[in-house]
Amino acid sequence: MSFENDLSTAQAEVQQALDTALAPFGDDPVAEAMRYATRGGKRLRAFLALEAAALFDVPRARALRAAAAIECVHAYSLIHDDLPCMDDDDLRRGQPTVHRRWDEATAVLAGDALQTLAFELLADPETHPDPAVRADLVLTLARDAGAQGMVRGQALDIAAETAAAPLTLDQVSELQRLKTGRLLEWPCRAGALLGGADPGPLVDYAGALGLAFQIADDLLDVEGDAEKAGKALRKDAAAGKATFVSLLGAEAARARAMSLVRDAEMSILIYTPKGANLGSVARYVVTRDR
Amino acid sequence: MSFENDLSTAQAEVQQALDTALAPFGDDPVAEAMRYATRGGKRLRAFLALEAAALFDVPRARALRAAAAIECVHAYSLIHDDLPCMDDDDLRRGQPTVHRRWDEATAVLAGDALQTLAFELLADPETHPDPAVRADLVLTLARDAGAQGMVRGQALDIAAETAAAPLTLDQVSELQRLKTGRLLEWPCRAGALLGGADPGPLVDYAGALGLAFQIADDLLDVEGDAEKAGKALRKDAAAGKATFVSLLGAEAARARAMSLVRDAEMSILIYTPKGANLGSVARYVVTRDR
Repeated sequence: MSFENDLSTAQAEVQQALDTALAPFGDDPVAEAMRYATRGGKRLRAFLALEAAALFDVPRARALRAAAAIECVHAYSLIHDDLPCMDDDDLRRGQPTVHRRWDEATAVLAGDALQTLAFELLADPETHPDPAVRADLVLTLARDAGAQGMVRGQALDIAAETAAAPLTLDQVSELQRLKTGRLLEWPCRAGALLGGADPGPLVDYAGALGLAFQIADDLLDVEGDAEKAGKALRKDAAAGKATFVSLLGAEAARARAMSLVRDAEMSILIYTPKGANLGSVARYVVTRDR
Repeated sequence: MSFENDLSTAQAEVQQALDTALAPFGDDPVAEAMRYATRGGKRLRAFLALEAAALFDVPRARALRAAAAIECVHAYSLIHDDLPCMDDDDLRRGQPTVHRRWDEATAVLAGDALQTLAFELLADPETHPDPAVRADLVLTLARDAGAQGMVRGQALDIAAETAAAPLTLDQVSELQRLKTGRLLEWPCRAGALLGGADPGPLVDYAGALGLAFQIADDLLDVEGDAEKAGKALRKDAAAGKATFVSLLGAEAARARAMSLVRDAEMSILIYTPKGANLGSVARYVVTRDR
């Protein structure tokens, strides 16, 4: 049960790091919304940063700053994604979304400021004594989150809604590699950067993990329990959206996810036994119910 | 006429730098909206970065990257500010706002990605060979743009709309120091950081400039020509908003702006004659008609 214990410990540490980072921001609605939106969640991206960094014996306090930064970007992307003009979701992690709890203006600003905070955390000397490492963390996160990374994935997703034909399997893979994959890849890369190590094997691991994660998400949308998931499900089919499940069928999609998990595990064999938790993450993402 | 010539040259150079930065982003609506929103404008913030850097003989190519970065943040803040849930503006720089030209989702994403791009530009080795300078540029911009800087100013602005009593002069000053002032201060500070110089005098200059700029903006809202300004005017009075003009009256506001211009000029006397254009900027912001 080391994985569950370690994940649970990491969740508490990351919450603490986020609380500290958000403490100076007063009590106006935007600051409160930033805190609200960074509470809860699986902390999968943070855990990846912590476990990747642990492979190279990076001091925990440094890894936690990268972990907090990626959770800020993740939370920002969810706040904006949930807006009425985007996915129009009322519920997130079982709670009202930020624009439902406050209003749209607060949601826009809280998302904006969480993105900014991520870069502030990384550029601060506390994250690493070597400014070259800090600049690299900022540069790689900006590339993974920006208009050639996550935001491009979101743009493709929006374009797909009004496209004449549904996306092909290649197009769905490319979209998800950008929209979900890049923010799962970054914490793995960040661990290596913090440790002065080659990020290659971890990037391979993250690529397989990201696709497995998304296939599991698509399966969850079709087969999951909305109450457990803490968000609305059955949205893809209702929107006539091409997903791994609509394109491959549930059974083949599940087989593909399992094969990707094995790919992910293979990529990090060189880190045995320290990489055990990363292997567990890969298996966890395809069996989770939320 | 050296100021007008230099500003005009800078505008062309900054546009070139932005075009280069935005070239890799394909032709989806989000990328097109990013280009659209970074076209035109006075380029005041970029010019401040270039002129501040020139005081310390910073190579022009480096200063232009900081200039492009601050214009990206400025454009992002305008796109989000213009959204229906915020100021709900149809016109910006005489053109339809991004959400009117495209849609709200594209506007949210284009703003998000422009913020990201600003940090990507600064963290890139091309901006400065010393990573410590790059990390400092990122850290200071994040502080000036985030939930203790510009976004806090925007949050206070929103809160003021529903407050029981109109803001006092101190509160309006604090709000504007955050909302407008911090993004005028950063390019001045960035010039000093790029040149390895003490930012103190330039930060003093920017503080006075920022308030003078905002008073001029308030006067423009009351007395300006909407066609020349390229945006809707008379909005503050219609919204019953406390401004420098509503609190001081037009005449005293104008006198205060002129006094701030002199403060700004005094702060940079030590840079005579190289600082001449910065003095011109201070005089320009209170006489502009857009």
